[in-house]
Amino acid sequence: MPGDSRAAGTHRSRPSSSEEPPDLEDQDLLLAAAYVSDAQYNRNVPFETSPQAIRLYHVYNHWTMRAATYFFIWVDLALALFEEPAVFPLPFLVTSIAEVLCLTAFFGRLVHFAKVTPLKVFWKDTKNICVMVTIVLTLIDLVIYASLEAVNIRGVRWSRALRPVFLINFPESRQIRRAFRSIRNTLPDILYVFLLFLFSMMIFSLMALKLFGDRGLRTVEGSPYFTNILDIAFELYVLVTTANSPDVMMPAYELNWWYSLYFITYIIINTYLFMSVFLAVVYNNYRKHLKNEIHTLAYLKRHKMTEAFNILKVKVGTAFVVKEARWRQLVKVVAPDISSSHLELLLRISDEGQTGHVDKMNFLRLADLLNIRVVAINIKRHPLETWMPRVYQSSTSLLVQKMVQHRIFVWVYDVIILINTIFIALDEKDSLISYAEWLFLSLYIFEILLKLYTYEPRAYFGRNQFWNWFDTLIIIAALLATVANTTIQGQKYSSQQILDIVLILRILRLLRVIVSIQRFRVIVTTLINIGPTMLTFGGLVLVVYYAFAIIGMEAFHGKVHFLDPGSGSPDALVCGNPALKDSAFARGRYCKNNFNDLASSLILLTELTVVNHFALLADGFALVTRQAAKLYFIGFHIVVVILIVNIFIAFILEAFFVAYSLEKSEVETAIEKKIQELGVGVQEEEVQDGGLIGHMDTEDSGFSVDDGDNRKKALKGLYFRIASKKYKTVDTLLQQMFESEIAPEGKDPSLEEILNFSPKKPNFDNSA
Amino acid sequence: MPGDSRAAGTHRSRPSSSEEPPDLEDQDLLLAAAYVSDAQYNRNVPFETSPQAIRLYHVYNHWTMRAATYFFIWVDLALALFEEPAVFPLPFLVTSIAEVLCLTAFFGRLVHFAKVTPLKVFWKDTKNICVMVTIVLTLIDLVIYASLEAVNIRGVRWSRALRPVFLINFPESRQIRRAFRSIRNTLPDILYVFLLFLFSMMIFSLMALKLFGDRGLRTVEGSPYFTNILDIAFELYVLVTTANSPDVMMPAYELNWWYSLYFITYIIINTYLFMSVFLAVVYNNYRKHLKNEIHTLAYLKRHKMTEAFNILKVKVGTAFVVKEARWRQLVKVVAPDISSSHLELLLRISDEGQTGHVDKMNFLRLADLLNIRVVAINIKRHPLETWMPRVYQSSTSLLVQKMVQHRIFVWVYDVIILINTIFIALDEKDSLISYAEWLFLSLYIFEILLKLYTYEPRAYFGRNQFWNWFDTLIIIAALLATVANTTIQGQKYSSQQILDIVLILRILRLLRVIVSIQRFRVIVTTLINIGPTMLTFGGLVLVVYYAFAIIGMEAFHGKVHFLDPGSGSPDALVCGNPALKDSAFARGRYCKNNFNDLASSLILLTELTVVNHFALLADGFALVTRQAAKLYFIGFHIVVVILIVNIFIAFILEAFFVAYSLEKSEVETAIEKKIQELGVGVQEEEVQDGGLIGHMDTEDSGFSVDDGDNRKKALKGLYFRIASKKYKTVDTLLQQMFESEIAPEGKDPSLEEILNFSPKKPNFDNSA
Repeated sequence: MPGDSRAAGTHRSRPSSSEEPPDLEDQDLLLAAAYVSDAQYNRNVPFETSPQAIRLYHVYNHWTMRAATYFFIWVDLALALFEEPAVFPLPFLVTSIAEVLCLTAFFGRLVHFAKVTPLKVFWKDTKNICVMVTIVLTLIDLVIYASLEAVNIRGVRWSRALRPVFLINFPESRQIRRAFRSIRNTLPDILYVFLLFLFSMMIFSLMALKLFGDRGLRTVEGSPYFTNILDIAFELYVLVTTANSPDVMMPAYELNWWYSLYFITYIIINTYLFMSVFLAVVYNNYRKHLKNEIHTLAYLKRHKMTEAFNILKVKVGTAFVVKEARWRQLVKVVAPDISSSHLELLLRISDEGQTGHVDKMNFLRLADLLNIRVVAINIKRHPLETWMPRVYQSSTSLLVQKMVQHRIFVWVYDVIILINTIFIALDEKDSLISYAEWLFLSLYIFEILLKLYTYEPRAYFGRNQFWNWFDTLIIIAALLATVANTTIQGQKYSSQQILDIVLILRILRLLRVIVSIQRFRVIVTTLINIGPTMLTFGGLVLVVYYAFAIIGMEAFHGKVHFLDPGSGSPDALVCGNPALKDSAFARGRYCKNNFNDLASSLILLTELTVVNHFALLADGFALVTRQAAKLYFIGFHIVVVILIVNIFIAFILEAFFVAYSLEKSEVETAIEKKIQELGVGVQEEEVQDGGLIGHMDTEDSGFSVDDGDNRKKALKGLYFRIASKKYKTVDTLLQQMFESEIAPEGKDPSLEEILNFSPKKPNFDNSA
Repeated sequence: MPGDSRAAGTHRSRPSSSEEPPDLEDQDLLLAAAYVSDAQYNRNVPFETSPQAIRLYHVYNHWTMRAATYFFIWVDLALALFEEPAVFPLPFLVTSIAEVLCLTAFFGRLVHFAKVTPLKVFWKDTKNICVMVTIVLTLIDLVIYASLEAVNIRGVRWSRALRPVFLINFPESRQIRRAFRSIRNTLPDILYVFLLFLFSMMIFSLMALKLFGDRGLRTVEGSPYFTNILDIAFELYVLVTTANSPDVMMPAYELNWWYSLYFITYIIINTYLFMSVFLAVVYNNYRKHLKNEIHTLAYLKRHKMTEAFNILKVKVGTAFVVKEARWRQLVKVVAPDISSSHLELLLRISDEGQTGHVDKMNFLRLADLLNIRVVAINIKRHPLETWMPRVYQSSTSLLVQKMVQHRIFVWVYDVIILINTIFIALDEKDSLISYAEWLFLSLYIFEILLKLYTYEPRAYFGRNQFWNWFDTLIIIAALLATVANTTIQGQKYSSQQILDIVLILRILRLLRVIVSIQRFRVIVTTLINIGPTMLTFGGLVLVVYYAFAIIGMEAFHGKVHFLDPGSGSPDALVCGNPALKDSAFARGRYCKNNFNDLASSLILLTELTVVNHFALLADGFALVTRQAAKLYFIGFHIVVVILIVNIFIAFILEAFFVAYSLEKSEVETAIEKKIQELGVGVQEEEVQDGGLIGHMDTEDSGFSVDDGDNRKKALKGLYFRIASKKYKTVDTLLQQMFESEIAPEGKDPSLEEILNFSPKKPNFDNSA
């Protein structure tokens, strides 16, 4: 095995008397555990292997440290809420002290990282440089702003737009960084399509100028129609977003219906064709680069596991293996809170022949094994059966149980929900209807009680019984809401916000219908599957939104004001800015769409993402500042709608294809086989999809009867099953996406070959 | 070979003395040719094998018959232009006679088909039934309408909406039918997503009613805000199309900015998530079903080729083969206009060892071989070189040629085009600029003359030299345009339409820039590649648009009129309908958007496809008729935007992925190898992508020198290359998409296995 000798060679000096089991050094175990843990979580931080550095590295990776970092990142980002222009104003001194505190924390985290990683690697990593430069720039900006403030000059807090840098550039934000890398890699390809698109727009603009320029046409608003080439270009750009269709066409169409062909051609080419091509290019690149990255990740994982194996291996017979005792120690260090039965199960899988040691192939699987959540199901009788068996097993009780398990029971409650919907839609002021409210609630609670009577409560509220939890929580929330509602109405005091929440909770109860329709459940489960990964895009969007919001606040702050139209002030009609007189912006009562604080800015940016009336908003802000302000809006459109939304769609498409055809991975199948072999399995399908709890319960009592099995006792009478697919990590899902396309193990290409995909070769972290 | 015996068994009685070459019967050859031709064009019509039926079948497939059918289909569809409400009105008698004529033609085509195909198959085919039922229904409708007309009652010509049935249901429209099948197969899956989407909309509607219903809020127009559950549902449906964002949110947002969260949640869930899921489901199903169909097609092609082989085979040694002479006869029947050199090339490829006969494997490839267009390049010296070698080879002449081939030559002309653009953008009334116009034109013509001097003219205007043709045609058009322009201006008479065309042609000249930028050329070539297949979607869209336009005309005809606003009539401001008073429809000057004739209807439907101001248009027509009219618009949105546009995007994505990674197919590689082997090849890359003509010319003269090659003489000094990929048929492109995923030859599944995918097993045509 050439890999072994190489890995052993790079490892620091170690007693190589591997014939007899060497005295296990504590730091060896820690080092191996660090490798395994990195492999498990796909961390690719090259760390020093000195005992002290390893200990520091363990601290660095501890969840409290990571949580603290995220806390400070969020505090730093949230500062924009309190700084001028603020939602909740705080004095500059307070926010600047908070900011310096955050910067100190970031710096501390960086120093910690520098102690862990080799210095050469540290200084080569763009991420670290980025963070440091941003810290320095922010400090400079703070000092300048404070000095200007002291002499009463209002400065520009430009460094605030850099804050998302911290969110992106800590090793914890791998997913967001991956998304950004994906965008960066897509840029060259998309650039040419974009240039061609601009070229086509230019040709069409020229045509429009020649065709309509000197006809003396007027728009609905009465302004000249298509007379200025820049206006035309902007209008046509907006037409790509479809936001001014069909208004932009009407004057020409009124003149002659042939001219509509010009606009239809334009829409087909630029809106449909080019926008689809953008999506195709983004999607194509996204897949290509994602595949390369996952490829690299898989290789690095294997590499780290090999390192760990080389540290712990001993020679038994002709092969190197890891002794069982040492393997147990390792797993306990890597996963301190693993249950002993779970550990036992993993060992049985890794040590197939019960030889007392784990061979290399099985050891390399460990990281994957640890990633698979195995749920131990403690199968017990129903508590009522234990306490009063005669009553619970009486014919009446059995009839009730059979009834609850029947399909008609579900249908009856679907009908009840339907009737409830009608009652909700009706006016609730009628006292009869408000009594009906209580009736429905009691019916729902009665249903849950019946279910708890029929099914084993701990199984019903098992960790992965998502739909049961969902159902019960909605009912409890509705109960609380109705109680709160009555109390508030009784007190003749009503807080609008609480009332609103109550209203929403009452209506959300209707979501229960989803639970009882199988096809709906499948779709929702798929959406929940891809949910965690979509949070990555949430992060991505947040970064872009934040930067644009800060820029927008600096540029457009205070230009547009919302004044209560009820006040009758003439200023209220022009949003407090005379430049908006007679503008569509003011006429549409858009005054609330402004950049006067972070919340308003983010809402406005959301509206811009939706694209409709994009031009109207851009025009409004161009009127109160200058025409060049439109560039801000066009820039936002290009970045968010053309790039990010397309990546979002690409991701949904890919994730949906995978989720629809989700197969168990190789390792999962191995675990499941072992679970079945040991006779401690519960069929996942039965628990998950089929008859929900009904079947599980049947299975349950079935097993309880023939409890005398020997093999089962070995694992303390527990049952196992693979945890549902929906709790997978992002990386696992992605890895599974491309699993089939990645070369099988053993045929791995060399590291150099793989790293050729990444822009910078020596830096492992680049591909994480 | 079990297939052989089976096929031979099903074949009608034939002298089985296959040891000596049997006397070739004419109908045998025709039958084989019919099979090969069907395989080549992927026709899957089960035809009778009697000599008469085969002859009829050849006539049936003749291009004149097909063209005639299409002619009548188009006439039938175009009738809507002349019928009340008409663009060009014609008396009812004329249109009804034309319609009856068309129906007769369709019936004739059907009878012809019935003569060709076994009667049992004919009556089982839904297509034929559809066409017949539609013919009968149309006749009934015509009679009823005419009778009503006679007693002066205006009837409804409802059967007109059925006309697209003819376009879909003739065997010629395989592609459109495939797209429809793809939609039909997608429906069950999409239905559940759609129901869930409706459910989510209902939940949000209820919430909106409870949250905003009794606040007394008013919209910008002053109407009550979110008080009626149906209005809310419609507004929220429109919000999914983004057409009323952010207006729909503003009143609530003004009340409290928290309420914007309701709308943002709604947009994220229903606009982004659900719409992406629709795309994902449509795309996923589209791929799945397409793959199955292509799979079936590949199998059927092989099956037909085997049939043909079994008819023509003779036994030589131990194997069955087809003799060279017979093979030649067959190819000449299948492709009557094949050049003898091309035939020779195909024979060389099929009869590798020059044994005088073609074995089964090579015979089966024939259909694919015939589908690959091989271009014979007649490499000759430049005519000038032949006529006056001394002048052409003089140092000045060589310098000019070198100059033209240089990169700088291209750049210079790019700069000229750029300057030209500026001149076009400027006002052309200035006489200096109108002279400049002539200068630019002469520069462009000079360029083409220089190129024709340098390159061999016949090679420059080769059949596949798309970009050269493009370039030259644009210049000629611009020349004609400028001449026409001057003439018109001189005559003081100017037809606006001619002037407009002139203007557009002058600007289109700028497209030449694309030719000189390599990356642009690649993108455009890709778009042109998928162009023919996109026409399928054109057909699909036409069918749906036509049906909706007819329904729209029957329902909304004459409700809205465009009156010249210059006339000052008060009716002009309300589009001739008092119900539109104060409506946004009239205020937006949308009167031209009506259903008063086919052209207007189609333009209006295009606007609805673009979706923006969808609600405004729907509201307008609801005002002049009744609220239920909105259902027409919502129905159109669901069918066109949710289904068809998504299929369009799915197709563009798939086609782009294929086009980006387009590899030569197996058969093409075989041909190319043979061409190279025979030494008569021209590297495609050099001709196509690399230095365009420059290289080709070099290659050209290079070959001209060592002309003494023996092998080359065998093929009359011609050069061959595979025709560019962009001229592939739709089927070929699709087949290539899934080629890698289809089981390799020999491992073919049984016909039964494959036909399980299709809804109806015994009907071959179903899968075509």
